[in-house]
Amino acid sequence: MTIDIYFEDLPNGKILDLGEKHVTREEIVAFASEFDPQPHHLDDEAARQSILGGLSASGWHTCAIMMRLLVDGLAVRAASMGSPGIEEVRWMKPVRPGDVLRMRGEVTSARVSKSRPDMGIVDIEWTLHNQREQVAWMKATGLYGLRAPRAA
Amino acid sequence: MTIDIYFEDLPNGKILDLGEKHVTREEIVAFASEFDPQPHHLDDEAARQSILGGLSASGWHTCAIMMRLLVDGLAVRAASMGSPGIEEVRWMKPVRPGDVLRMRGEVTSARVSKSRPDMGIVDIEWTLHNQREQVAWMKATGLYGLRAPRAA
Repeated sequence: MTIDIYFEDLPNGKILDLGEKHVTREEIVAFASEFDPQPHHLDDEAARQSILGGLSASGWHTCAIMMRLLVDGLAVRAASMGSPGIEEVRWMKPVRPGDVLRMRGEVTSARVSKSRPDMGIVDIEWTLHNQREQVAWMKATGLYGLRAPRAA
Repeated sequence: MTIDIYFEDLPNGKILDLGEKHVTREEIVAFASEFDPQPHHLDDEAARQSILGGLSASGWHTCAIMMRLLVDGLAVRAASMGSPGIEEVRWMKPVRPGDVLRMRGEVTSARVSKSRPDMGIVDIEWTLHNQREQVAWMKATGLYGLRAPRAA
Protein backbone atom coordinates (compact mmCIF):
# COMPACT_ATOMS: atom_id res chain seq x y z
CA MET A 1 0.00 0.00 0.00
CA THR A 2 1.15 3.54 -0.68
CA ILE A 3 2.67 5.45 2.21
CA ASP A 4 0.69 8.68 2.41
CA ILE A 5 0.61 9.53 6.14
CA TYR A 6 3.64 11.33 7.54
CA PHE A 7 4.46 13.19 10.76
CA GLU A 8 3.02 16.38 9.24
CA ASP A 9 -0.38 14.65 8.91
CA LEU A 10 -0.58 13.94 12.66
CA PRO A 11 -0.70 17.38 14.33
CA ASN A 12 -1.77 17.99 17.91
CA GLY A 13 -5.58 17.56 18.17
CA LYS A 14 -5.91 15.34 15.08
CA ILE A 15 -8.73 12.76 15.46
CA LEU A 16 -8.22 9.26 14.05
CA ASP A 17 -11.25 7.02 13.59
CA LEU A 18 -10.11 3.48 12.87
CA GLY A 19 -12.12 0.43 11.93
CA GLU A 20 -13.88 -2.10 14.09
CA LYS A 21 -13.25 -5.69 15.18
CA HIS A 22 -15.77 -8.40 16.03
CA VAL A 23 -14.40 -10.59 18.86
CA THR A 24 -15.31 -14.28 19.02
CA ARG A 25 -15.23 -16.76 21.88
CA GLU A 26 -12.76 -18.88 19.89
CA GLU A 27 -10.33 -15.95 19.56
CA ILE A 28 -10.58 -15.15 23.29
CA VAL A 29 -9.86 -18.75 24.29
CA ALA A 30 -7.07 -19.19 21.70
CA PHE A 31 -5.19 -16.08 22.83
CA ALA A 32 -5.62 -16.93 26.51
CA SER A 33 -4.51 -20.54 25.96
CA GLU A 34 -1.21 -19.31 24.57
CA PHE A 35 -0.51 -16.18 26.61
CA ASP A 36 -2.84 -15.80 29.60
CA PRO A 37 -4.17 -19.20 30.69
CA GLN A 38 -6.17 -18.04 33.69
CA PRO A 39 -9.54 -19.79 34.19
CA HIS A 40 -11.68 -16.64 33.68
CA HIS A 41 -10.27 -16.28 30.14
CA LEU A 42 -10.69 -19.96 29.26
CA ASP A 43 -13.74 -21.51 30.85
CA ASP A 44 -17.33 -20.24 31.09
CA GLU A 45 -18.14 -21.82 34.44
CA ALA A 46 -14.92 -20.68 36.14
CA ALA A 47 -15.47 -17.24 34.61
CA ARG A 48 -19.01 -16.98 35.98
CA GLN A 49 -17.65 -17.50 39.47
CA SER A 50 -14.84 -14.95 39.01
CA ILE A 51 -14.77 -11.25 39.82
CA LEU A 52 -15.66 -10.43 36.17
CA GLY A 53 -18.83 -12.58 36.16
CA GLY A 54 -18.29 -14.25 32.78
CA LEU A 55 -15.79 -15.14 30.08
CA SER A 56 -13.65 -12.15 29.06
CA ALA A 57 -10.62 -11.51 26.91
CA SER A 58 -7.14 -11.18 28.38
CA GLY A 59 -6.23 -7.51 28.73
CA TRP A 60 -3.23 -8.24 26.52
CA HIS A 61 -5.56 -9.65 23.88
CA THR A 62 -7.45 -6.36 24.00
CA CYS A 63 -4.15 -4.51 23.49
CA ALA A 64 -3.23 -6.80 20.58
CA ILE A 65 -6.63 -6.12 18.97
CA MET A 66 -5.97 -2.39 19.34
CA MET A 67 -2.61 -2.88 17.63
CA ARG A 68 -4.24 -4.69 14.71
CA LEU A 69 -6.80 -1.90 14.29
CA LEU A 70 -3.93 0.61 14.43
CA VAL A 71 -1.93 -1.27 11.80
CA ASP A 72 -4.86 -1.73 9.40
CA GLY A 73 -6.24 1.77 9.88
CA LEU A 74 -3.07 3.82 10.16
CA ALA A 75 0.36 2.16 10.27
CA VAL A 76 0.05 0.34 6.96
CA ARG A 77 -0.28 3.73 5.23
CA ALA A 78 2.09 5.67 7.47
CA ALA A 79 5.82 6.33 7.48
CA SER A 80 5.90 4.50 10.81
CA MET A 81 9.26 4.07 12.53
CA GLY A 82 8.08 2.01 15.50
CA SER A 83 7.41 2.85 19.11
CA PRO A 84 9.60 3.15 22.21
CA GLY A 85 6.73 2.19 24.48
CA ILE A 86 3.39 2.86 26.10
CA GLU A 87 2.67 5.54 28.69
CA GLU A 88 -0.38 3.90 30.20
CA VAL A 89 -3.04 1.23 29.61
CA ARG A 90 -6.40 1.11 31.37
CA TRP A 91 -8.65 -1.95 31.16
CA MET A 92 -11.97 -0.43 32.18
CA LYS A 93 -14.58 -3.07 31.33
CA PRO A 94 -14.36 -6.72 30.30
CA VAL A 95 -14.24 -7.55 26.57
CA ARG A 96 -16.79 -10.33 25.95
CA PRO A 97 -17.42 -12.84 23.16
CA GLY A 98 -19.52 -11.14 20.48
CA ASP A 99 -18.33 -7.62 21.27
CA VAL A 100 -17.72 -5.29 18.35
CA LEU A 101 -14.81 -3.04 19.26
CA ARG A 102 -14.18 0.37 17.73
CA MET A 103 -11.05 2.45 18.15
CA ARG A 104 -10.54 6.19 18.09
CA GLY A 105 -7.45 8.27 18.75
CA GLU A 106 -6.52 11.86 19.43
CA VAL A 107 -3.03 13.24 18.95
CA THR A 108 -2.00 14.95 22.20
CA SER A 109 1.58 15.89 21.32
CA ALA A 110 3.59 16.06 18.08
CA ARG A 111 7.20 17.22 17.94
CA VAL A 112 10.24 16.70 15.72
CA SER A 113 13.06 14.69 17.31
CA LYS A 114 16.03 16.85 18.30
CA SER A 115 18.54 14.09 17.59
CA ARG A 116 16.90 12.93 14.33
CA PRO A 117 15.37 15.82 12.37
CA ASP A 118 13.82 13.37 9.85
CA MET A 119 11.69 11.77 12.60
CA GLY A 120 8.71 13.00 14.59
CA ILE A 121 7.51 11.84 18.01
CA VAL A 122 3.72 11.61 18.27
CA ASP A 123 1.70 10.84 21.42
CA ILE A 124 -1.79 9.50 20.77
CA GLU A 125 -4.52 8.73 23.33
CA TRP A 126 -6.58 5.77 22.09
CA THR A 127 -10.02 4.75 23.28
CA LEU A 128 -11.73 1.43 22.58
CA HIS A 129 -15.52 1.13 22.79
CA ASN A 130 -17.85 -1.83 22.48
CA GLN A 131 -21.51 -1.45 21.44
CA ARG A 132 -22.40 0.19 24.78
CA GLU A 133 -19.43 1.68 26.57
CA GLN A 134 -15.73 2.35 26.72
CA VAL A 135 -13.68 -0.77 27.52
CA ALA A 136 -10.06 0.40 27.30
CA TRP A 137 -7.80 3.43 27.09
CA MET A 138 -4.17 3.70 26.09
CA LYS A 139 -1.62 6.46 25.67
CA ALA A 140 1.12 5.46 23.25
CA THR A 141 4.13 7.10 21.68
CA GLY A 142 4.79 6.53 17.97
CA LEU A 143 7.67 7.55 15.72
CA TYR A 144 6.84 8.81 12.21
CA GLY A 145 9.00 9.96 9.36
CA LEU A 146 8.69 13.53 8.11
CA ARG A 147 7.45 14.08 4.56
CA ALA A 148 9.74 17.06 4.21
CA PRO A 149 12.57 17.12 6.80
CA ARG A 150 14.13 20.54 7.28
CA ALA A 151 17.84 20.77 6.69
CA ALA A 152 19.65 20.36 10.02
CA MET B 1 -2.73 -25.88 41.52
CA THR B 2 -2.95 -24.80 45.15
CA ILE B 3 -3.31 -21.10 45.84
CA ASP B 4 -0.48 -20.24 48.21
CA ILE B 5 0.48 -16.66 47.30
CA TYR B 6 -1.60 -13.88 48.82
CA PHE B 7 -1.25 -10.13 49.20
CA GLU B 8 0.75 -10.66 52.40
CA ASP B 9 3.40 -12.56 50.39
CA LEU B 10 4.08 -9.59 48.10
CA PRO B 11 5.48 -6.85 50.36
CA ASN B 12 7.32 -3.78 49.12
CA GLY B 13 10.81 -4.80 47.95
CA LYS B 14 9.93 -8.46 47.28
CA ILE B 15 11.89 -9.91 44.34
CA LEU B 16 10.17 -12.33 41.96
CA ASP B 17 12.30 -14.47 39.65
CA LEU B 18 10.08 -16.10 37.07
CA GLY B 19 10.92 -18.66 34.43
CA GLU B 20 12.25 -18.24 30.91
CA LYS B 21 10.83 -18.46 27.41
CA HIS B 22 12.57 -19.45 24.18
CA VAL B 23 11.17 -17.41 21.27
CA THR B 24 10.99 -18.93 17.79
CA ARG B 25 10.72 -17.35 14.36
CA GLU B 26 7.44 -19.20 13.83
CA GLU B 27 5.94 -17.67 16.99
CA ILE B 28 7.10 -14.17 16.01
CA VAL B 29 5.56 -14.45 12.53
CA ALA B 30 2.34 -16.09 13.80
CA PHE B 31 1.67 -13.39 16.38
CA ALA B 32 2.50 -10.61 13.92
CA SER B 33 0.33 -12.12 11.19
CA GLU B 34 -2.68 -11.93 13.48
CA PHE B 35 -2.07 -8.76 15.48
CA ASP B 36 0.77 -6.64 14.08
CA PRO B 37 1.25 -7.37 10.37
CA GLN B 38 4.01 -4.87 9.69
CA PRO B 39 6.76 -6.03 7.32
CA HIS B 40 9.59 -5.90 9.92
CA HIS B 41 7.74 -8.48 12.05
CA LEU B 42 6.91 -10.77 9.12
CA ASP B 43 9.63 -10.84 6.52
CA ASP B 44 13.40 -11.17 6.88
CA GLU B 45 14.31 -9.09 3.85
CA ALA B 46 11.93 -6.23 4.72
CA ALA B 47 13.15 -6.42 8.31
CA ARG B 48 16.81 -6.13 7.30
CA GLN B 49 16.01 -2.86 5.54
CA SER B 50 14.01 -1.48 8.49
CA ILE B 51 15.15 0.65 11.41
CA LEU B 52 15.56 -2.50 13.56
CA GLY B 53 17.92 -4.23 11.10
CA GLY B 54 16.32 -7.68 11.22
CA LEU B 55 13.24 -9.68 12.08
CA SER B 56 11.89 -8.83 15.54
CA ALA B 57 8.83 -9.61 17.62
CA SER B 58 5.92 -7.19 17.89
CA GLY B 59 6.19 -5.24 21.13
CA TRP B 60 2.75 -6.60 22.00
CA HIS B 61 4.04 -10.12 21.49
CA THR B 62 6.80 -9.30 24.00
CA CYS B 63 4.12 -8.11 26.44
CA ALA B 64 2.08 -11.28 25.87
CA ILE B 65 5.18 -13.40 26.56
CA MET B 66 5.69 -11.47 29.81
CA MET B 67 2.08 -12.21 30.74
CA ARG B 68 2.56 -15.93 30.13
CA LEU B 69 5.69 -15.97 32.31
CA LEU B 70 3.74 -14.07 34.97
CA VAL B 71 0.83 -16.54 34.84
CA ASP B 72 3.03 -19.65 34.96
CA GLY B 73 5.42 -18.29 37.57
CA LEU B 74 3.06 -16.37 39.83
CA ALA B 75 -0.62 -15.91 38.94
CA VAL B 76 -1.45 -19.61 38.75
CA ARG B 77 -0.48 -19.94 42.43
CA ALA B 78 -1.76 -16.54 43.57
CA ALA B 79 -5.07 -15.21 44.83
CA SER B 80 -5.08 -12.96 41.76
CA MET B 81 -8.06 -10.66 41.25
CA GLY B 82 -6.99 -9.17 37.93
CA SER B 83 -5.46 -5.86 36.94
CA PRO B 84 -6.85 -2.40 36.26
CA GLY B 85 -4.02 -1.59 33.89
CA ILE B 86 -0.39 -0.86 33.17
CA GLU B 87 1.52 2.23 34.23
CA GLU B 88 4.20 2.06 31.59
CA VAL B 89 5.83 -0.22 29.02
CA ARG B 90 9.29 0.33 27.51
CA TRP B 91 10.48 -1.67 24.52
CA MET B 92 14.22 -1.13 24.80
CA LYS B 93 15.77 -3.64 22.38
CA PRO B 94 14.32 -5.88 19.66
CA VAL B 95 13.31 -9.43 20.57
CA ARG B 96 14.80 -11.76 17.95
CA PRO B 97 14.16 -15.35 16.86
CA GLY B 98 16.12 -17.68 19.15
CA ASP B 99 16.16 -15.31 22.12
CA VAL B 100 15.71 -16.82 25.56
CA LEU B 101 13.79 -14.33 27.68
CA ARG B 102 13.90 -14.22 31.46
CA MET B 103 11.62 -12.11 33.66
CA ARG B 104 12.22 -10.62 37.08
CA GLY B 105 9.99 -8.37 39.18
CA GLU B 106 10.28 -6.12 42.20
CA VAL B 107 7.30 -5.03 44.26
CA THR B 108 7.42 -1.23 44.52
CA SER B 109 4.15 -0.63 46.38
CA ALA B 110 1.71 -2.83 48.33
CA ARG B 111 -1.37 -1.48 50.09
CA VAL B 112 -4.79 -2.76 51.14
CA SER B 113 -7.72 -1.33 49.19
CA LYS B 114 -9.70 1.23 51.20
CA SER B 115 -12.98 0.26 49.58
CA ARG B 116 -12.36 -3.51 49.70
CA PRO B 117 -10.44 -4.61 52.81
CA ASP B 118 -10.16 -8.17 51.46
CA MET B 119 -8.11 -6.97 48.46
CA GLY B 120 -4.60 -5.59 48.12
CA ILE B 121 -3.19 -3.37 45.37
CA VAL B 122 0.36 -4.30 44.34
CA ASP B 123 2.62 -2.41 41.93
CA ILE B 124 5.40 -4.48 40.40
CA GLU B 125 8.20 -3.33 38.10
CA TRP B 126 9.07 -6.11 35.66
CA THR B 127 12.25 -6.45 33.62
CA LEU B 128 12.78 -8.81 30.69
CA HIS B 129 16.30 -9.82 29.66
CA ASN B 130 17.58 -11.90 26.75
CA GLN B 131 20.94 -13.71 26.87
CA ARG B 132 22.86 -10.42 26.67
CA GLU B 133 20.83 -7.42 27.76
CA GLN B 134 17.54 -5.98 28.96
CA VAL B 135 14.88 -5.85 26.24
CA ALA B 136 11.76 -4.57 28.02
CA TRP B 137 10.48 -2.97 31.21
CA MET B 138 6.96 -2.72 32.53
CA LYS B 139 5.27 -1.28 35.60
CA ALA B 140 1.95 -3.00 36.28
CA THR B 141 -0.70 -2.92 38.98
CA GLY B 142 -2.17 -6.20 40.20
CA LEU B 143 -4.99 -6.97 42.63
CA TYR B 144 -4.48 -9.81 45.12
CA GLY B 145 -6.69 -11.28 47.80
CA LEU B 146 -5.58 -11.12 51.43
CA ARG B 147 -4.91 -14.37 53.24
CA ALA B 148 -6.30 -12.88 56.43
CA PRO B 149 -8.45 -9.76 55.88
CA ARG B 150 -8.87 -7.61 58.97
CA ALA B 151 -12.39 -6.96 60.12
CA ALA B 152 -13.60 -3.68 58.59
